[in-house]
Amino acid sequence: MLNFEFKNPTKILFGKGQIANLAQEIPQDAKVMLLYGGGSIKSNGVYEQVKNALSVFNVVEFGGIPANPEYAILMEALHIIKSQGITYMLAVGGGSVIDGVKFLSAAALYEGDEPWDILKKSIKTEQGLPFGTVLTLPATGSEMNSGSVITRKETQEKLAMGGPGLFPVFSVLDPQVVQSIPMRQLANGITDAFTHVLEQYMTYPIGALLQDRFAESILQTLVDVAPKIIKNSADYEAAANFMWSCTMALNGLIQKGVPGDWAIHAMGHELTAMFGIDHARTLAVILPGHYQYNFEAKKEKLAQYGQRVWGINSGTTDEMAKQAIEKTVEFFHSLEIDTKLSDYTADCEGTAEKISQRFTDRGWLGLGEHKSLSPADVLEIVKMSY
Amino acid sequence: MLNFEFKNPTKILFGKGQIANLAQEIPQDAKVMLLYGGGSIKSNGVYEQVKNALSVFNVVEFGGIPANPEYAILMEALHIIKSQGITYMLAVGGGSVIDGVKFLSAAALYEGDEPWDILKKSIKTEQGLPFGTVLTLPATGSEMNSGSVITRKETQEKLAMGGPGLFPVFSVLDPQVVQSIPMRQLANGITDAFTHVLEQYMTYPIGALLQDRFAESILQTLVDVAPKIIKNSADYEAAANFMWSCTMALNGLIQKGVPGDWAIHAMGHELTAMFGIDHARTLAVILPGHYQYNFEAKKEKLAQYGQRVWGINSGTTDEMAKQAIEKTVEFFHSLEIDTKLSDYTADCEGTAEKISQRFTDRGWLGLGEHKSLSPADVLEIVKMSY
Repeated sequence: MLNFEFKNPTKILFGKGQIANLAQEIPQDAKVMLLYGGGSIKSNGVYEQVKNALSVFNVVEFGGIPANPEYAILMEALHIIKSQGITYMLAVGGGSVIDGVKFLSAAALYEGDEPWDILKKSIKTEQGLPFGTVLTLPATGSEMNSGSVITRKETQEKLAMGGPGLFPVFSVLDPQVVQSIPMRQLANGITDAFTHVLEQYMTYPIGALLQDRFAESILQTLVDVAPKIIKNSADYEAAANFMWSCTMALNGLIQKGVPGDWAIHAMGHELTAMFGIDHARTLAVILPGHYQYNFEAKKEKLAQYGQRVWGINSGTTDEMAKQAIEKTVEFFHSLEIDTKLSDYTADCEGTAEKISQRFTDRGWLGLGEHKSLSPADVLEIVKMSY
Repeated sequence: MLNFEFKNPTKILFGKGQIANLAQEIPQDAKVMLLYGGGSIKSNGVYEQVKNALSVFNVVEFGGIPANPEYAILMEALHIIKSQGITYMLAVGGGSVIDGVKFLSAAALYEGDEPWDILKKSIKTEQGLPFGTVLTLPATGSEMNSGSVITRKETQEKLAMGGPGLFPVFSVLDPQVVQSIPMRQLANGITDAFTHVLEQYMTYPIGALLQDRFAESILQTLVDVAPKIIKNSADYEAAANFMWSCTMALNGLIQKGVPGDWAIHAMGHELTAMFGIDHARTLAVILPGHYQYNFEAKKEKLAQYGQRVWGINSGTTDEMAKQAIEKTVEFFHSLEIDTKLSDYTADCEGTAEKISQRFTDRGWLGLGEHKSLSPADVLEIVKMSY
């Protein structure tokens, strides 16, 4: 086990009807900005519940934060925050809205001239403008971590940011929101959370027995509940386990004391930036080739995963590891998630070269848990996804 | 899954050499009280490491906090805290020292006349005097929770207290401390953590699939590492997994959204108060009879535990559940933990009546996950432990 530091101060309010309790978590004298996305919260009852809970506050609204939160739009919100003296934000939405609000939390107190520098220069935020969240789409774990990914159309870039000042003060997780989520987004959420766990787990054995078992617990739970959610998204028990699993998949706990991979995300982000493919689907596109290409380095953990999560009980390490990759692809397919780039675009040709070149340009010379994947390796892996 | 709130703000510094980093976590102008137990930290090198780390601070020492932290001794420390204007405490020790410091954290800011009321009247502490910990004995999880148990010899009482103000600000977990722990205390630590998990897990199915799997993960990890720790306590990897498992066993995570039992602790505390038996050993004494007595209510979870933790693959639910209890007793015996009260005292007779009467006197009329165990049930369960 590696040395680690762990602190996660976010307060979780989990369960039926918890939206009604959020006002108790916000300072009474706060000037609140309520931020949301495309407006689905207005048709599923969440907006009304939130507005009722916020009735005692002075609230400014900012809707329209898109999937893959866009820098130019967030800059409009930043202008309002500064001009109106907003002191607290409430993000109501999925990972995109919450990630966008994290950028605003950092940017509102940033003293430099150009907020994009927070992303470009990887500036860690030690203190941000406080905010809470009401999660409407289980997937990214953003409701209980301090990371964020922001997109800038102008430059076709998608970059990550974070820092200890960017944990939500509180997050409301009411599993009842799951029933109004479209099937496509539910499948994305399951795939996203599943891959988050794998990025932190599918490396090499390092003797972190408990972290391994926690990671496997989340994977097993997602495998258990996925068919129930897909069959009936109003199944509260399945929804609750799905929601809590997504949060635990990326709240820092399972990554402590172990190496991380995250190369799948690095490559996947480029596919979203280039083609607009849903984030989760880009992960499902990259993952199989990535594990095949790095098979020797990962086969022990792949076999352990195959045994413990998929019940593969016979065969050599190599055979079990291969079956584990196949089982993962089958799982994505069971969610109607396609796993080839050509399923999403007719323009595969040249993609690998472009991504590899971008990594070279950014100086991303060592990806993966061994920091050993070069842009040349990235070229091969992305080609395997066509 | 039940509704829940979860917040755990303690910062963990985990791994080799982390004691050296603790000064960064304490405000520079703090007037620090360093508290410890019987002095073992002076022979195992921890005291020296802590003193070096604290060299920049004004430090007052208070040693001699006993196992089952004693109210009268803590009152001496409280007097010094108040008279010398201590602003920060550092607990260096196991659960007893940390629990004692939590009482002091609450008592230092308590405005009533009689600090014992914090325990007797179950007063929740919203804000305490800040403190950090350096854990020297993995077992109780006190290093990452807000609970404490205090003993008062004068009245033969052992009572619990807590509140959101009593989380340690930080805790240092260096698994290297494990190698100097006597075998008896290692066995106690493993038994204590194992039983903590069972108290939160061995109730009835409530559809909290992830919490179940997390609980099983901790149990499985303890089963895996226990023989290694007993064989060679200098095995760093085993020690690290043991230490992190003990913390995760009682930091609040696995109890969220599920019912809790805790009747074993309630009865066990009385055995410690009456006979001075080590806390962990009282749990091993009460547990088998408690599960046999409440077999019908718990058999589904017992069978699940038998299957997932002990690999019991055949038999009816009843048969698997019974085997699971036997396996647990065998596990305690493998640690040289005796599981009968008569192994510890010749004076069993009358114990059950006395404990049952105490519960009646305190108005503890409904123990266990169904709040259904009466003092008459307690009488039977304690008798089964003789």
